Amino acid sequence: MSTRFVCFGELLLRLGAPGRELLLQSPHLDVHVGGAEANVAVALAHFGHVVALVSSVPENALGKAALGEMRRHGVDTTGITRKPGRMGLYFIETGAAQRPSDVLYDRADSAFARVLPESYDWPYLLAGAQVLHVSGVTPAVGANAASAAIAAVKAARAAGLDVVFDGNFRSKLWQAWDGDASAILHEIFACADLVFADHRDIAIALNRDFSAVRHDDIAQVATDAAFAAFPQLKRIAATQRRQHSVDHHELSATLFTRDGVIETPGYSMTPIVDRVGGGDAFAAGMLHGLYSGMSDADSLNFGLAAACLKHSVPGDFLRLETTDVAAFLGEQRFDIRR
Amino acid sequence: MSTRFVCFGELLLRLGAPGRELLLQSPHLDVHVGGAEANVAVALAHFGHVVALVSSVPENALGKAALGEMRRHGVDTTGITRKPGRMGLYFIETGAAQRPSDVLYDRADSAFARVLPESYDWPYLLAGAQVLHVSGVTPAVGANAASAAIAAVKAARAAGLDVVFDGNFRSKLWQAWDGDASAILHEIFACADLVFADHRDIAIALNRDFSAVRHDDIAQVATDAAFAAFPQLKRIAATQRRQHSVDHHELSATLFTRDGVIETPGYSMTPIVDRVGGGDAFAAGMLHGLYSGMSDADSLNFGLAAACLKHSVPGDFLRLETTDVAAFLGEQRFDIRR
Amino acid sequence: MSTRFVCFGELLLRLGAPGRELLLQSPHLDVHVGGAEANVAVALAHFGHVVALVSSVPENALGKAALGEMRRHGVDTTGITRKPGRMGLYFIETGAAQRPSDVLYDRADSAFARVLPESYDWPYLLAGAQVLHVSGVTPAVGANAASAAIAAVKAARAAGLDVVFDGNFRSKLWQAWDGDASAILHEIFACADLVFADHRDIAIALNRDFSAVRHDDIAQVATDAAFAAFPQLKRIAATQRRQHSVDHHELSATLFTRDGVIETPGYSMTPIVDRVGGGDAFAAGMLHGLYSGMSDADSLNFGLAAACLKHSVPGDFLRLETTDVAAFLGEQRFDIRR
Amino acid sequence: MSTRFVCFGELLLRLGAPGRELLLQSPHLDVHVGGAEANVAVALAHFGHVVALVSSVPENALGKAALGEMRRHGVDTTGITRKPGRMGLYFIETGAAQRPSDVLYDRADSAFARVLPESYDWPYLLAGAQVLHVSGVTPAVGANAASAAIAAVKAARAAGLDVVFDGNFRSKLWQAWDGDASAILHEIFACADLVFADHRDIAIALNRDFSAVRHDDIAQVATDAAFAAFPQLKRIAATQRRQHSVDHHELSATLFTRDGVIETPGYSMTPIVDRVGGGDAFAAGMLHGLYSGMSDADSLNFGLAAACLKHSVPGDFLRLETTDVAAFLGEQRFDIRR
Amino acid sequence: MSTRFVCFGELLLRLGAPGRELLLQSPHLDVHVGGAEANVAVALAHFGHVVALVSSVPENALGKAALGEMRRHGVDTTGITRKPGRMGLYFIETGAAQRPSDVLYDRADSAFARVLPESYDWPYLLAGAQVLHVSGVTPAVGANAASAAIAAVKAARAAGLDVVFDGNFRSKLWQAWDGDASAILHEIFACADLVFADHRDIAIALNRDFSAVRHDDIAQVATDAAFAAFPQLKRIAATQRRQHSVDHHELSATLFTRDGVIETPGYSMTPIVDRVGGGDAFAAGMLHGLYSGMSDADSLNFGLAAACLKHSVPGDFLRLETTDVAAFLGEQRFDIRR
Amino acid sequence: MSTRFVCFGELLLRLGAPGRELLLQSPHLDVHVGGAEANVAVALAHFGHVVALVSSVPENALGKAALGEMRRHGVDTTGITRKPGRMGLYFIETGAAQRPSDVLYDRADSAFARVLPESYDWPYLLAGAQVLHVSGVTPAVGANAASAAIAAVKAARAAGLDVVFDGNFRSKLWQAWDGDASAILHEIFACADLVFADHRDIAIALNRDFSAVRHDDIAQVATDAAFAAFPQLKRIAATQRRQHSVDHHELSATLFTRDGVIETPGYSMTPIVDRVGGGDAFAAGMLHGLYSGMSDADSLNFGLAAACLKHSVPGDFLRLETTDVAAFLGEQRFDIRR
Repeated sequence: MSTRFVCFGELLLRLGAPGRELLLQSPHLDVHVGGAEANVAVALAHFGHVVALVSSVPENALGKAALGEMRRHGVDTTGITRKPGRMGLYFIETGAAQRPSDVLYDRADSAFARVLPESYDWPYLLAGAQVLHVSGVTPAVGANAASAAIAAVKAARAAGLDVVFDGNFRSKLWQAWDGDASAILHEIFACADLVFADHRDIAIALNRDFSAVRHDDIAQVATDAAFAAFPQLKRIAATQRRQHSVDHHELSATLFTRDGVIETPGYSMTPIVDRVGGGDAFAAGMLHGLYSGMSDADSLNFGLAAACLKHSVPGDFLRLETTDVAAFLGEQRFDIRR
Repeated sequence: MSTRFVCFGELLLRLGAPGRELLLQSPHLDVHVGGAEANVAVALAHFGHVVALVSSVPENALGKAALGEMRRHGVDTTGITRKPGRMGLYFIETGAAQRPSDVLYDRADSAFARVLPESYDWPYLLAGAQVLHVSGVTPAVGANAASAAIAAVKAARAAGLDVVFDGNFRSKLWQAWDGDASAILHEIFACADLVFADHRDIAIALNRDFSAVRHDDIAQVATDAAFAAFPQLKRIAATQRRQHSVDHHELSATLFTRDGVIETPGYSMTPIVDRVGGGDAFAAGMLHGLYSGMSDADSLNFGLAAACLKHSVPGDFLRLETTDVAAFLGEQRFDIRR
Repeated sequence: MSTRFVCFGELLLRLGAPGRELLLQSPHLDVHVGGAEANVAVALAHFGHVVALVSSVPENALGKAALGEMRRHGVDTTGITRKPGRMGLYFIETGAAQRPSDVLYDRADSAFARVLPESYDWPYLLAGAQVLHVSGVTPAVGANAASAAIAAVKAARAAGLDVVFDGNFRSKLWQAWDGDASAILHEIFACADLVFADHRDIAIALNRDFSAVRHDDIAQVATDAAFAAFPQLKRIAATQRRQHSVDHHELSATLFTRDGVIETPGYSMTPIVDRVGGGDAFAAGMLHGLYSGMSDADSLNFGLAAACLKHSVPGDFLRLETTDVAAFLGEQRFDIRR
Repeated sequence: MSTRFVCFGELLLRLGAPGRELLLQSPHLDVHVGGAEANVAVALAHFGHVVALVSSVPENALGKAALGEMRRHGVDTTGITRKPGRMGLYFIETGAAQRPSDVLYDRADSAFARVLPESYDWPYLLAGAQVLHVSGVTPAVGANAASAAIAAVKAARAAGLDVVFDGNFRSKLWQAWDGDASAILHEIFACADLVFADHRDIAIALNRDFSAVRHDDIAQVATDAAFAAFPQLKRIAATQRRQHSVDHHELSATLFTRDGVIETPGYSMTPIVDRVGGGDAFAAGMLHGLYSGMSDADSLNFGLAAACLKHSVPGDFLRLETTDVAAFLGEQRFDIRR
Repeated sequence: MSTRFVCFGELLLRLGAPGRELLLQSPHLDVHVGGAEANVAVALAHFGHVVALVSSVPENALGKAALGEMRRHGVDTTGITRKPGRMGLYFIETGAAQRPSDVLYDRADSAFARVLPESYDWPYLLAGAQVLHVSGVTPAVGANAASAAIAAVKAARAAGLDVVFDGNFRSKLWQAWDGDASAILHEIFACADLVFADHRDIAIALNRDFSAVRHDDIAQVATDAAFAAFPQLKRIAATQRRQHSVDHHELSATLFTRDGVIETPGYSMTPIVDRVGGGDAFAAGMLHGLYSGMSDADSLNFGLAAACLKHSVPGDFLRLETTDVAAFLGEQRFDIRR
Repeated sequence: MSTRFVCFGELLLRLGAPGRELLLQSPHLDVHVGGAEANVAVALAHFGHVVALVSSVPENALGKAALGEMRRHGVDTTGITRKPGRMGLYFIETGAAQRPSDVLYDRADSAFARVLPESYDWPYLLAGAQVLHVSGVTPAVGANAASAAIAAVKAARAAGLDVVFDGNFRSKLWQAWDGDASAILHEIFACADLVFADHRDIAIALNRDFSAVRHDDIAQVATDAAFAAFPQLKRIAATQRRQHSVDHHELSATLFTRDGVIETPGYSMTPIVDRVGGGDAFAAGMLHGLYSGMSDADSLNFGLAAACLKHSVPGDFLRLETTDVAAFLGEQRFDIRR
């Protein structure tokens, strides 16, 4: 039984140096399509849900290719318009051991960023859906996108959809256009049923400073403050990442509800094939759990398992099925399946 | 001083997704030639033995290429016929961390499977050889191949060759043609001097159930039963694999003789470059040891070292020389040799 | 203003040697998705039409990938089922100069071929469409597919759709299951409004022999016979290919109607990047013309231009837009567009 | 005996689809560094001259790589600054036969375009040089670059350098910032000793319309007008390109002086490996000839030969030596040199 | 009915820039195994003959790989020894249009060149064979190889084998060790039944100068002189190559016997995929014809067809079968075979 | 504030099997430029220093490419001559887990090795520099290079430069020409201010045997002996490498001065992307520290950090900047930088 999701955000092309090479060390780039909301959309589609992405791509070969890639993964693209402007890009080199991976954004002034907020017909775009998902990257893109994101979550709330917001705070993007992150995120938090956020995201949305709080208490204090400030908010989820090296992280997750907190044990992830999209896979996995009738604890575990598996798949997308996640949560067999 | 071996089994093409990609994530496949018996044959040829493979490939470019690949590694291919039919294929995607590798077989109705058992002239094919090697994949391929395998081991035994059988039980293959694995494997075990098998293989060959036996005793109980049932049988060898993740296994080995049991310590294998063919390399290594005059214990160690090294070589074949295995068993230096 | 097309046929994976290499000369294969009807469907989708493909793919990673590739190009895949069985494959090596390209089919017993004809619900599958397209490859696949193809064209005719049939005679496929091509093609021709066929296709469908006819007259004689035998048939189109070398062909086209014949001049195509799918692009181009309100002559020219351009695009699909074909028919500028 | 050249213009990254694929048909891009003036600089450096490029690249890995590539070819990069901003990009897919190659520019708002004209210290940058080379791409980039280009040619003229201007008119770039091409190019022509230009470039620089002139006379009429308007101008050179297909062009060249006109025969170029940079190679070749003491006619031939050879070299750069060009002009042997 | 051939010469590794790139333009090299005599041996093996190569390779991974490659193609390698020393290499960049391909030899002081002539046991190496083939590259390698080549042809003649010599004159190799080409080639010609040679080769072997002879007569004059000087010589064959561009050659062939001359028409070869080994394929094709019972004229045509087809196959080897050559000589169909 | 360094040594091409393949397992090689002194030069250039390499490359495409690669990284190449001879090569296959990486040298008789010592004009080549760096590979190349190395360090000392010598003892190279390593290294040590050396290097330079010394004391004893024997010597540095597997080493470093010893903790390096050049990066890092005004301890740490990071970068060169090394020494964050 599938749920109908709408995700709203920008599609990006990721241009990556092959293997562990530095950028342009050899004259080749590998290309992936990505974007926080697109990543969630693709993962949910592979999990069997009906998912539409609302976005805009340029009217050129790059935009056409990105749009085709979404269709390939079964995402409904009728809400993606083709507009004048450029394709948002990012360049990446994948590190190793103690050399961190590096991202170089080249997404300013994209076709998506130029779309006027009034050009989105939200009642039409949300018709028939149960859930709207937006991440903090969307409002950070610029004034147009921020207004559109606020309009989207308000329209969704008004139409009775659940609203899911994934913090994904990117200070560089906000600084580039001098956006008032606190005010904007506050408006979005005020519409959300579920947020993926840690104390830093909450601090911004509440314009508060938790730095004086004891480290062990900070998550609970921030969560309490968020629940107090946003009465409609039901759940706050987050992952915790411990990094031993570029190729070896450990991931656990926490879910706060008004009834208390659920915590998972940590999974050791090594080698990490592709770290990009790990948080988006967590969101998609948890959404699958919650909207498939799993308990909060099972949803959290499913989300963490999806996040963990994402680190083993090249590209931004988790393109695995629920049976793959279930196998991970089950026997944990690591030999060839044949 | 080399020994003359004959191996009997099917050649397969392995079509693999590049690196850690999912199948057809990008539109490329890397091709390797393989097959349990071919893997043993190639390893033994690199160890300096005279090895012939008895097999059949289709009369087309794929069959020609597979046959050429065997010659490249020094295997005698005069016993490989070219017949109508298709090439057996398998597709593979290599997992990572907690995502298991996946094999997709597409080998039904191959040229090899179609060959009638009476078309093999075993006295001619075995002439001059000391050892016949067959694995459990061969009889599992179908009724023709099963009859041929039984004929082969009987002819070998009649002609005074040693017979080596490697269990390699693949339930999917047996189910595909509803073959009576127990009866067929019993006939083959009854001709073997050495089998590579664990308690599961033995249970099938004896049509017995060891599930009530205490876990710690099961190997000994099964082995005792096999030695009792098959008076000609001299040795039973097996590896034990502990899996920490897809990229990190630990391998040890055990050899049962009528005089007792020999056990090796475990080797930690990480990263695993290519896990396919690990068991075949163990068989080849142990055969090299036994037929080069090593003690049982040294042969077991040589086999385990060969198996371990196979995990570091791309493709199905162990294409290393005895000096490489000896270096592994010796100083264990891990810096560049220059 | 787009037309709704339904195409019915098998999806295949094409595994090709890189560049001009012989098969398995180096251990890599490049993968494309194709199939006569899929090729037509993709081209029509890029031309802006609404196209659904009716087909079946295996329930495995290969089938999933082929299906995703159709979606990527905007083809409606809701009529593609996932069934047990294998994926139809073909291997190709691309020749050069005087060395012809070679195809090696490995498509027997595919999931598509196994689908029982009664499992297709044609009224449902054709609902809302104006045109059904089938090629001669579909009935050649086997008894199931032949029955399904006949049922499809009858259902389409009954429902008032136009029926388009592309001859594509492949004797090897018919021989493999000893199918009665004449009888089956006769039934299909009897439902078609438009056929892509030359005198050889017509000879089979009519079970006649035109070999005694003078070479210059044979096309007209065969066409007359077809129009006489099939009163519902309105148009017969074909391309003529003159081959100077593997890399240099010349292509022209002819359209017979009951009013007479239209002929195009020939286009010289060199170098040929990928000859596969040339005929399918011709069909798609002509269908675009006819169903976009072009005259017969303009449709024929559009079809020929599409066919010609296909030879310059790697893979089985023509993935160009109508503006690209129009540019070809217009100024014919061959410098970089910048 | 080498001459000291200074070239002024933007460095670009070219991201190209592999082989004859469409953009993002497969997920790989091949990268080359280019730019009209950089192309001239690299060719002159390989011809043995001392060449400096004045430019700016972003302070990131892409800019660092582009700068390193210039150094690799022996171009003096001390006049290239590293500034905030993005790297100018262009995407390209290489056509075939009748499918034209397509370029997609993504160079707006680059680090180079942002550099203020007053930040160039021309007396310092030109010190010791004999020749300044600028192409029409530089002023087309934007108001900053246009002012800088004018300042550069004036400073060069004042300092006694020869000024060379290559028309390279790109209407899309001028339109993007609504630049007054006529006025700006007039100022630049007024400083040039040698221009690479045809009647279209001259029409813009003179703000005149030659469309009423008979086709056969138009080059001479335009040239006369230019010589009349710009008394310092000594030579006007241009190539003529006849296009049989994307892979087959024919190239000839013309040089107008105040003494008359010199024309070359045409070279047939097929196959064309890489058409980008052909005009820049012509400029570089002719500059080499003129500044190595060749006659005008020999310089023209050398330039045309360089242009022709460029079409056989992948990437934007002609990376051949004078001996390669001389061999082309000499025996024209087309067998392997061994 | 196959003939037993022995070929004597060096195995080389060819390290080539990808596609049409200049050497090290990008940091990759494609590797092929080759060598004039190895090329002949591989072609003859694919034509169904029994062929042994006498050679030496270094005792390292490169030598092992080259040896394995010969086995892969079915060449008997028991006469190839593994010796101290280095592997002979050559680097190649493939030109295009008017840019010639370039070879850079790095074969001095190879393991093969170091082998002492007395270490070859010719009676043993030639036992059972009917034909010995040597090319002019072998004696040009150095004093050791020259002595060995003379010993080989003398031993072959003494043992009743036919001796075939392919001129292949490489002046750079002779100059490197100041070898007396005239004296050495004279000795070899004096043992040959068939030589592949033009007037230049004959001039050297006879130490004569034909430069005063009229161009149209020179082949006949040189041939007459050779037949006069070498009474055992039966046939002199050669190809004529006309070069329109690097990618377009025309090839014809001539066979002189004591009875007269046979000439073929020319084949136009375009595009040329790989020109290396064209002459060796001609030799192999002609040998196949002569030793399969074809007439002189048919053998010449078969040789020319083999040479022509070689230009369409990547790498040094003609790896086609006699049916492929027959198809070329037959219908000349250039469409896909499916 | 940058220092001017001169490095003296040979440039090599490294031809490597792709990924973890054995040499020529597939027919491709990846190419890198390297050489102990070139590696130091490139790293220092990326650290912002002015570095010149004194060397010779052959007058061919390989030499031209190697020279261009040095320029690309900002190394001054005016001291690199182009001479007759061959390019020094080495082949490498990268191991995994317990299979060691293997290097196959093919550098004998290179253009560099042939250069006569008197052809170097050291006063000219060293003019303006503060530091000369030579490694033990240079004198090991042959008699010419050994004489040149001695002349270089003497000239540097005479001109007031600091002399840095990196032991890099390669017994195979010395044996190839029977060079008197002890005498030669003694002369070089006698000129050095700083040596990178362990007790084995010192034993050779002093022609002494420390094998009777207790293992824990041997470094101090050897160091004391070196300080006693070479009064001008100020510092002796070395790394210690503990190898857990081919992919997992641990590295620490020690610096002896006349005032005592400084030791670092060990860094665990896994996975190791490319181990080649690790020692050279240590030298470069330490030189950067010492000549940028860091303390001995900070310089040692910087050197060790540079060495460690080198293991994560493909190719022989450390192409990172001082900020990358500083980040390593600082927070040690292992997540993507975005």
